[in-house]
Amino acid sequence: MRLSRYFPILDWGRHYTGTALTSDLVAAIIVTIMLIPQSLAYAMLAGLPPVVGLYASILPLVAYALFGTSRTLAVGPVAVVSLMTATAAGAVAATGSADYIAAALILALLSGIFLLVMGLLRLGSLANLLSHPVVSGFITASGIIIATSQLKYILGIEAGGHTMPQLLATLSANIGTINVPTLTIGATSLAFLFWVRKGLKPLLVKLGLADRPADLVAKAGPVFAVVATIVAVVLLDLEAKGVRTVGVIPTGLPPIGAPLFDADLWLALAVPALLISIIGFVESVSIAQTLAAKRRQRIDPDQELVGLGAANVVAGFSGGYPVTGGFARSVVNFDAGAETPAAGAFTAVGIAVAALLLTPFLASLPLATLAATIIVAVLSLVDLRAPIVTWRYSKADFAAMAMTMLGTLVLGVETGVIAGVLLSLALFVWRSSRPHAAVIGRVPNTEHFRNVERHKVITLPHILMIRIDESLTYLNARWLEEYVLEQMADRPELKHLVLMCSAVNEIDASALESLEAINHRLADANIRFHLSEVKGPVMDRLQKSDFLDALTGEIFLSQNGAFAELAGRGDDEGDPLPVDPDPYGPRGLI
Amino acid sequence: MRLSRYFPILDWGRHYTGTALTSDLVAAIIVTIMLIPQSLAYAMLAGLPPVVGLYASILPLVAYALFGTSRTLAVGPVAVVSLMTATAAGAVAATGSADYIAAALILALLSGIFLLVMGLLRLGSLANLLSHPVVSGFITASGIIIATSQLKYILGIEAGGHTMPQLLATLSANIGTINVPTLTIGATSLAFLFWVRKGLKPLLVKLGLADRPADLVAKAGPVFAVVATIVAVVLLDLEAKGVRTVGVIPTGLPPIGAPLFDADLWLALAVPALLISIIGFVESVSIAQTLAAKRRQRIDPDQELVGLGAANVVAGFSGGYPVTGGFARSVVNFDAGAETPAAGAFTAVGIAVAALLLTPFLASLPLATLAATIIVAVLSLVDLRAPIVTWRYSKADFAAMAMTMLGTLVLGVETGVIAGVLLSLALFVWRSSRPHAAVIGRVPNTEHFRNVERHKVITLPHILMIRIDESLTYLNARWLEEYVLEQMADRPELKHLVLMCSAVNEIDASALESLEAINHRLADANIRFHLSEVKGPVMDRLQKSDFLDALTGEIFLSQNGAFAELAGRGDDEGDPLPVDPDPYGPRGLI
Repeated sequence: MRLSRYFPILDWGRHYTGTALTSDLVAAIIVTIMLIPQSLAYAMLAGLPPVVGLYASILPLVAYALFGTSRTLAVGPVAVVSLMTATAAGAVAATGSADYIAAALILALLSGIFLLVMGLLRLGSLANLLSHPVVSGFITASGIIIATSQLKYILGIEAGGHTMPQLLATLSANIGTINVPTLTIGATSLAFLFWVRKGLKPLLVKLGLADRPADLVAKAGPVFAVVATIVAVVLLDLEAKGVRTVGVIPTGLPPIGAPLFDADLWLALAVPALLISIIGFVESVSIAQTLAAKRRQRIDPDQELVGLGAANVVAGFSGGYPVTGGFARSVVNFDAGAETPAAGAFTAVGIAVAALLLTPFLASLPLATLAATIIVAVLSLVDLRAPIVTWRYSKADFAAMAMTMLGTLVLGVETGVIAGVLLSLALFVWRSSRPHAAVIGRVPNTEHFRNVERHKVITLPHILMIRIDESLTYLNARWLEEYVLEQMADRPELKHLVLMCSAVNEIDASALESLEAINHRLADANIRFHLSEVKGPVMDRLQKSDFLDALTGEIFLSQNGAFAELAGRGDDEGDPLPVDPDPYGPRGLI
Repeated sequence: MRLSRYFPILDWGRHYTGTALTSDLVAAIIVTIMLIPQSLAYAMLAGLPPVVGLYASILPLVAYALFGTSRTLAVGPVAVVSLMTATAAGAVAATGSADYIAAALILALLSGIFLLVMGLLRLGSLANLLSHPVVSGFITASGIIIATSQLKYILGIEAGGHTMPQLLATLSANIGTINVPTLTIGATSLAFLFWVRKGLKPLLVKLGLADRPADLVAKAGPVFAVVATIVAVVLLDLEAKGVRTVGVIPTGLPPIGAPLFDADLWLALAVPALLISIIGFVESVSIAQTLAAKRRQRIDPDQELVGLGAANVVAGFSGGYPVTGGFARSVVNFDAGAETPAAGAFTAVGIAVAALLLTPFLASLPLATLAATIIVAVLSLVDLRAPIVTWRYSKADFAAMAMTMLGTLVLGVETGVIAGVLLSLALFVWRSSRPHAAVIGRVPNTEHFRNVERHKVITLPHILMIRIDESLTYLNARWLEEYVLEQMADRPELKHLVLMCSAVNEIDASALESLEAINHRLADANIRFHLSEVKGPVMDRLQKSDFLDALTGEIFLSQNGAFAELAGRGDDEGDPLPVDPDPYGPRGLI
């Protein structure tokens, strides 16, 4: 049982049936057809030779099939990770150089190692640092950058860069050198693919095809565009007229070998590899969970880290580049009826066959066609409604999203994500440091206590009751000290202060220190400090400290009990407050 | 009124009386006597000429008197900040060089600017990042380093470094060159000062002196040691026997001038200056609050930033180095009866007079005496019980404390603090990402709902009720998704899931997205999703989103209402679940 946690194949492989085999084979064939142009296109987007895209779609898929827990996730090259690869590799080597390809391999290996380590140490919660607004803003901005970066292939001009200012500057500088045959192919492909997306499925349904098959045929749209434009290039000899094509793709299976070891290079690529692994993981898991829930299946996020990690390590050793679960492919895989991860392994066989047999036919494929498939795909990533919706819901979340989008568009993918993560964290810390608290009083004729500012309640001049609506941690401990002192300063008749702890799930060591300081300072002002409604686990903790011995007041089970008891005592002082053995508290810095 | 917030002197200055003047003058004289040896000693600790300590105790005190809100805080050089100054300046220049002194001035100016900016932007909550265990561990480790660093003066040998490994290595390398006359003076001073601390006050009380005056006389112990050892050096001509002394101190008032502007140097000193300002602020405010509470006074932490900021900027322009509120001096000031910040200004006058008249007499003061005063003072910073107490109370807090102590001792003050802050934050984020949640059921014959694992409660197979004990934020949003899916997966009869939100004070955009995903995935499994006991402000927010429209279930005012209503419906399916317009949710990375 334990072993099958780390090798899910032991689980589903044991019950593998002929029906499942048929379903998986059908799904694999459909995904293979879709993946061939996709893998070439995304390799181009990553600035890599097209064949690298094919290599990244063979052995990594087998590795995921062995270790992944999703029955339907289709792993391979994806658009956003390709952009991140291009940015990271472009920072250390010239695009297309041998060093650049080596950097892509290292990125795959490093991100695979990060994923494996996170998986084995159960550190998947690192992904929590990526808030939804950051991921959403990042993906939208990446989609915009990717679409813009592909315009040069549609127009047949030179351009470069991985940020909007760079892209727009180089595009506008070369806008005069448009190649008309290229633009014709590019624009036609774009128009065709947009039509396929919107119009083909309804047409097929109208022609009598069922909903799902119609969907699958529509998803194969790029294949038609690829075939048609290859034929056009060959027949019209468009290469001689300046149409750039994929060119000769080496035929054969992926080369097996270890990536270059160079400590400086590995160090330079570590941060981008970490970002690639975390972002790839977050999105992949989200897709896998959505699909799994449709069949009431479960995926194990920690084991997903292992599965994706293995896929990337294998990519690094077999001539690929970073891979993760792709949305479009996974949906096709799911809809085509894939039942087990074996579908992924069969897809790998399909791509291997393509790498052995199909590559000669792909040499004349125009880059403009690939660019068109990329543009059509990534425009669905661009969600310009999200910032508006988020602005309406939460200004803080909007700020994180806007920061991520702007940072990504202007400064690049890595800076954008890091800025977004840091801002989210800063805003979270800031909000955690200003909890809600209220002075409360008793609602007449009830045992309920409510905010004095919002309700007509009963209070007494010698009793101050404060409710805090948050756990007490180091981030809000000093805030609480100041709040209590402020409330106390204006009440000369005060004899008792009760802190209602019904919403306090935790009191950390800093907050304990602050409670001690409050107890201390109230005692100096001859005021007793009480707590009420302390939760069981919090009380267990407090009993391990000296706080309860030093506390000048009592712990009341209920707020009502506290009020009744203290009100009954009236202005009576009770026992004298103990003499403080350490009257100056902290030692400071001397 | 508004103006007096930024210039508290307008407030207390208006009501200044003859009685207050007398009290402040008396306190100022006593603090001056204490501050003269202290300022020389701490300047030595910072690796600066003794006169810099005097300069730092003149105009900065006047600036704080104008802008500070504490009536009794005594600002000036302190031990830990002196160590931090030595570390930071030592990293950019050779100790004692002109560049080193310039670096100290820049540190004062920069930390003053940071404090002012934090004060004007009300960013005092930045100090919240320093948890109590981090500050406590840092101060203890600093105390150990400071005491060790002073041993060379007691032994009359050469040694250096700002970390324990460096200090111990250089001390042990030169242990053979001990100077016996120096050691005699050092050891005698140490023994005398320890006795003064423990034995003088009881003796004076026995001789009939009242408690407070006895305390004040005991605090003046270092002055006796200073006078006695100066006399010994002069009479016995100990300088010729190798006893190192303070040497000629220039007579006169502080030089006024702007610190050197050098962009690289400022950049290199920015992080240490930020740490100096935040740590100095945290401790200073804590002392000021403790003393203020004793007289039911209030201090304004944001205005304290301005006061300390002004003091440091002035230190940078008047030949000083970073200053902050000192514990020992402030207590003396308080006990001596200081009533207003004017006492600080009078102390400044006292130090100025000393700088003009007393410096010739201080030339023969042995460094061993100053080192002894430092060691005796800082040993009270070392709190070795704190790690034990913290370990007992919270392992996470202990980890942060241990990391800070080890980092500070082995790698230096800056690394230590930064490591502690980052670990505290990481642990906080980690804990926030794993909130407490429980499957609940109804306690028989009540309207109370409790954890099914701890109580005998009523549940129904088609209703799952989950209580979450934390606000829903991006850090725990994915955790919640997984938790809910996990709970759902094992319950084939499930029709309704109710999330009880009584402890939810906030739902951020990421958590909203997760609630939408949960709603979505439950609907795919034909389960309705309900919420109960949603707080008013949280509900207001939800109404700004589309979530309530998409929600397949209802919002119940009370958990009991939800249970009663859904139990009454039995297995009835109700209206069919709406068809999902967007069946695949997230778009992924394509």
